[in-house]
Amino acid sequence: MKIRNILSTNTLSYVAGSHDALSGKIAEEIGFDAIWASGLGISATQAVPDMSILTMSEFLTASESIASAVNIPVICDCDAGFGNMHNVSRLVEKYEKAGIESICIEDKKHPKLNSFLEGEQLCESIEEFRGKIYIACQTRKNKDFAVIARCESLIAGLGMEEALYRSNAYADAGADAILIHSKQKTPEEILEFSKRWSGKAPLVIVPTTYPSLKIDDSLTSIGISTIIFANQSLRASVNSMKEVLEEIYNDKNTQSVESRISSVKDIFNLQGIEEVKTLEEKIFEERKYNK
Amino acid sequence: MKIRNILSTNTLSYVAGSHDALSGKIAEEIGFDAIWASGLGISATQAVPDMSILTMSEFLTASESIASAVNIPVICDCDAGFGNMHNVSRLVEKYEKAGIESICIEDKKHPKLNSFLEGEQLCESIEEFRGKIYIACQTRKNKDFAVIARCESLIAGLGMEEALYRSNAYADAGADAILIHSKQKTPEEILEFSKRWSGKAPLVIVPTTYPSLKIDDSLTSIGISTIIFANQSLRASVNSMKEVLEEIYNDKNTQSVESRISSVKDIFNLQGIEEVKTLEEKIFEERKYNK
Amino acid sequence: MKIRNILSTNTLSYVAGSHDALSGKIAEEIGFDAIWASGLGISATQAVPDMSILTMSEFLTASESIASAVNIPVICDCDAGFGNMHNVSRLVEKYEKAGIESICIEDKKHPKLNSFLEGEQLCESIEEFRGKIYIACQTRKNKDFAVIARCESLIAGLGMEEALYRSNAYADAGADAILIHSKQKTPEEILEFSKRWSGKAPLVIVPTTYPSLKIDDSLTSIGISTIIFANQSLRASVNSMKEVLEEIYNDKNTQSVESRISSVKDIFNLQGIEEVKTLEEKIFEERKYNK
Amino acid sequence: MKIRNILSTNTLSYVAGSHDALSGKIAEEIGFDAIWASGLGISATQAVPDMSILTMSEFLTASESIASAVNIPVICDCDAGFGNMHNVSRLVEKYEKAGIESICIEDKKHPKLNSFLEGEQLCESIEEFRGKIYIACQTRKNKDFAVIARCESLIAGLGMEEALYRSNAYADAGADAILIHSKQKTPEEILEFSKRWSGKAPLVIVPTTYPSLKIDDSLTSIGISTIIFANQSLRASVNSMKEVLEEIYNDKNTQSVESRISSVKDIFNLQGIEEVKTLEEKIFEERKYNK
Repeated sequence: MKIRNILSTNTLSYVAGSHDALSGKIAEEIGFDAIWASGLGISATQAVPDMSILTMSEFLTASESIASAVNIPVICDCDAGFGNMHNVSRLVEKYEKAGIESICIEDKKHPKLNSFLEGEQLCESIEEFRGKIYIACQTRKNKDFAVIARCESLIAGLGMEEALYRSNAYADAGADAILIHSKQKTPEEILEFSKRWSGKAPLVIVPTTYPSLKIDDSLTSIGISTIIFANQSLRASVNSMKEVLEEIYNDKNTQSVESRISSVKDIFNLQGIEEVKTLEEKIFEERKYNK
Repeated sequence: MKIRNILSTNTLSYVAGSHDALSGKIAEEIGFDAIWASGLGISATQAVPDMSILTMSEFLTASESIASAVNIPVICDCDAGFGNMHNVSRLVEKYEKAGIESICIEDKKHPKLNSFLEGEQLCESIEEFRGKIYIACQTRKNKDFAVIARCESLIAGLGMEEALYRSNAYADAGADAILIHSKQKTPEEILEFSKRWSGKAPLVIVPTTYPSLKIDDSLTSIGISTIIFANQSLRASVNSMKEVLEEIYNDKNTQSVESRISSVKDIFNLQGIEEVKTLEEKIFEERKYNK
Repeated sequence: MKIRNILSTNTLSYVAGSHDALSGKIAEEIGFDAIWASGLGISATQAVPDMSILTMSEFLTASESIASAVNIPVICDCDAGFGNMHNVSRLVEKYEKAGIESICIEDKKHPKLNSFLEGEQLCESIEEFRGKIYIACQTRKNKDFAVIARCESLIAGLGMEEALYRSNAYADAGADAILIHSKQKTPEEILEFSKRWSGKAPLVIVPTTYPSLKIDDSLTSIGISTIIFANQSLRASVNSMKEVLEEIYNDKNTQSVESRISSVKDIFNLQGIEEVKTLEEKIFEERKYNK
Repeated sequence: MKIRNILSTNTLSYVAGSHDALSGKIAEEIGFDAIWASGLGISATQAVPDMSILTMSEFLTASESIASAVNIPVICDCDAGFGNMHNVSRLVEKYEKAGIESICIEDKKHPKLNSFLEGEQLCESIEEFRGKIYIACQTRKNKDFAVIARCESLIAGLGMEEALYRSNAYADAGADAILIHSKQKTPEEILEFSKRWSGKAPLVIVPTTYPSLKIDDSLTSIGISTIIFANQSLRASVNSMKEVLEEIYNDKNTQSVESRISSVKDIFNLQGIEEVKTLEEKIFEERKYNK
């Protein structure tokens, strides 16, 4: 499925947050429609806080690695664009070249703070952020490269009217979709926004804090096109690593955990060893020469 | 504990294989003595086969990220040194500078093939590999930086005598420890090697395929100093990500998995958010100026 | 001009060796048809010997930077492919994605030694190198991405017959052009090779050591399509930096050198400051919003 | 000479701006006391404007390459710290680890604009910048790592009083030196500042636009410790590359330029080929084994 279909409200699409190529490949095999290259997740693999500590170069390297491994679209979480509109322009140039289908930038000031962290959530001016969206659209070479504007008004406590006004402004600047973010424990806020939304661009939501939302195709009727399960895969891996390593540390032995962990062969397969062997066989014949 | 203590046969030390900074930090918190920055693991996170596909630069970046996150020594799996002795020299310069305490290079030809993969396991000449060990020792600035020679004779089918002869040669060239590798299903081979070993340098073992080995301090009496549990953490994470993502994909809901995965707050803590807050509070006071 | 035209013998094409984006942009402005992203040059900017000390990642970063800066094709000197055929496959994937139009790999063993350096010049088996050429061609996505095989038989002292036999074998494996290298002080060797060449693929030459060669379109009649002036730009820069820095160091003043060096404004222009200003003006209008 | 001596007003020290390891090595051979890893220069080698387009990662890579090549201190131009105080903390951690002796950060808003470019030169609040200086000093592990505060008040048109007030504030926050920048055509402004300066920290100046300044040890009496010739080496290289490439392009021959450019052997020597040969000879003896 192409990124344009994923963002379309014809059907609801499901996106799995990934933090590296391995988790991306697992999500693809299970059947998710696209990958969310998560800023939280990529920061977490490097054990640094999700507050624009990693540079655009570091996020790009991680994102490109994911995009190389999977055949479904990758939507990259690009924080607040890592600077001003010129930095956004360079990031689009680099990300598009890396084979990435979409970027998402949020209307917070760079360096940004994770939306679920305590602390001041500072938003940029509408003007500044429209400039970023506009230049991102101008810079892309392929018109199918999707620019998603993430509105943080609800996170920053600016209210529903501001969220709607800004989202309209971003869609008018060219955003291909609006990611409307909420940290409420229930879906009311998101549902109100969606119902009042102008429909100028499809909506993307991330139900991390409001898992009680009923998710099915009926959401498309209020403009929602895409659901991102942003960080569950990361959180699953952390929990299991803790459990398994603790058991090994206590037992000084791996026998009791073997049945609960993937085999080395499973890992080899995720690394594409079968493709390598097939290729080798093919090439060995072609290498010979005697003329 | 310093790397020299970890490699000493005074007591047995336990090392956890890690594939990124996050898994390294989890291993440290549980109490492991050191981290094995695994070539298989780092390749797996990028979904490429473990056959020297990633470059030294890419392994270095991943290894440095781990070393920045933990306060215990990191032993880096450096394949066959990524080239000849000049490449080894540069790698030691770079890895030492990155705050890494130890590297391990194996006596296979570069580019190497994972020891558990089918296919020809080609070893370098003793001369060539001694040159690498020697130059690695010459290049390090800090004499506590440990150079570990990994002997693949048993993996490559060259026999016990060759394994012993080569390991002696490597120890004589300056290796601070010998990692003797085996892919047998039982520990006999490793135990025979250890009993016949000259004791010129401490031994390191990786009981991936022979988990029935009884692991305790008695192993130090036959020269074994260090146990590496090389890839269980990676394998745990893969298994759990598959399970959890599959359930989310089927349910279109995350509620049923929440109890089995770490909380977002746990992730924030592993990312060091508390340290950041403490630092911020301290600095805010110092920033003021009115003179 | 496209890379296919540059490698065609319809007319002779002229390629300037560059060591970074700045030198590449200067060559483009003067009118050269393409850039040779020189392994010697890129190694030199990092002050490391030209013997595959830098990794594929480092060469790629430098090459991508050049390709981003210019609008003419970039031909990248990729040493011996940085490993075996699997490493070549990954390099093609990465270089093509980076917007590079062509790579050149040589039939020496990796890690290679600069062709003009004293020391043993070891060549790979024909079989091994054909495998690299073949896989490079199979990996590219765009059939216009050109794979150039560099034959080092004359450099390695294997003789004219071997050079011809190998070059034929490489062309038959799919090479889009043959770079035939010589370190003789006169052009006889290159001319003999060209006259006896089968014509299966166009020839590329690098007249560093034989500058007396008369260079004009008549060379196309003996199969030569492309001339690479590989390192003169680098050597010009070194000489002038030495002279100017020495004078400043002695004078403790820059006034006497000002007339012999480019202005700061010239530098700004090479950095594309005019394009940035134009873009800014355009965007400032679009940013406003009041609906 | 150590960085502390270079910044001391005992004698005047001379620093050459470099844009890569090669230009750094040339400056070292001529006798300069230290290298200024220039933001303008490093941006220029990549042909991007000097306005924080390159990321911290990219500047670090370039700076580390320089530091690896020379044995004199490297002072790194780190723009406005590439973000907020947390980004500064990470940059100090990374730069110190890379073997760099000093960083310089300026009190402009990130992303910054080159001081000689037209356009708004926005300064940060004193509070914000003091926080950066303070955290930089707290983060360094080695107290000899020097943190230089660059005051842009004169560039930004804030006036002499503000320049003095801010510079005092930065010195009080821990800055090891103040780089006071001016873009006037004559040295009056810089001389006035120096004469009125409190002397709380040594001064560093960059006489790019005011080359008529008489430079000798008498400057130390007004607090100036260090002179940076920031970009002449880059400008020399650009001019000569243009001239030489143009001549080659017109002549289709390199013979007439050979006498004005460095030899290939000179390049090899700057790349350290002699050290490699010496090392090889030494190692070849050690590799043998027969016991």
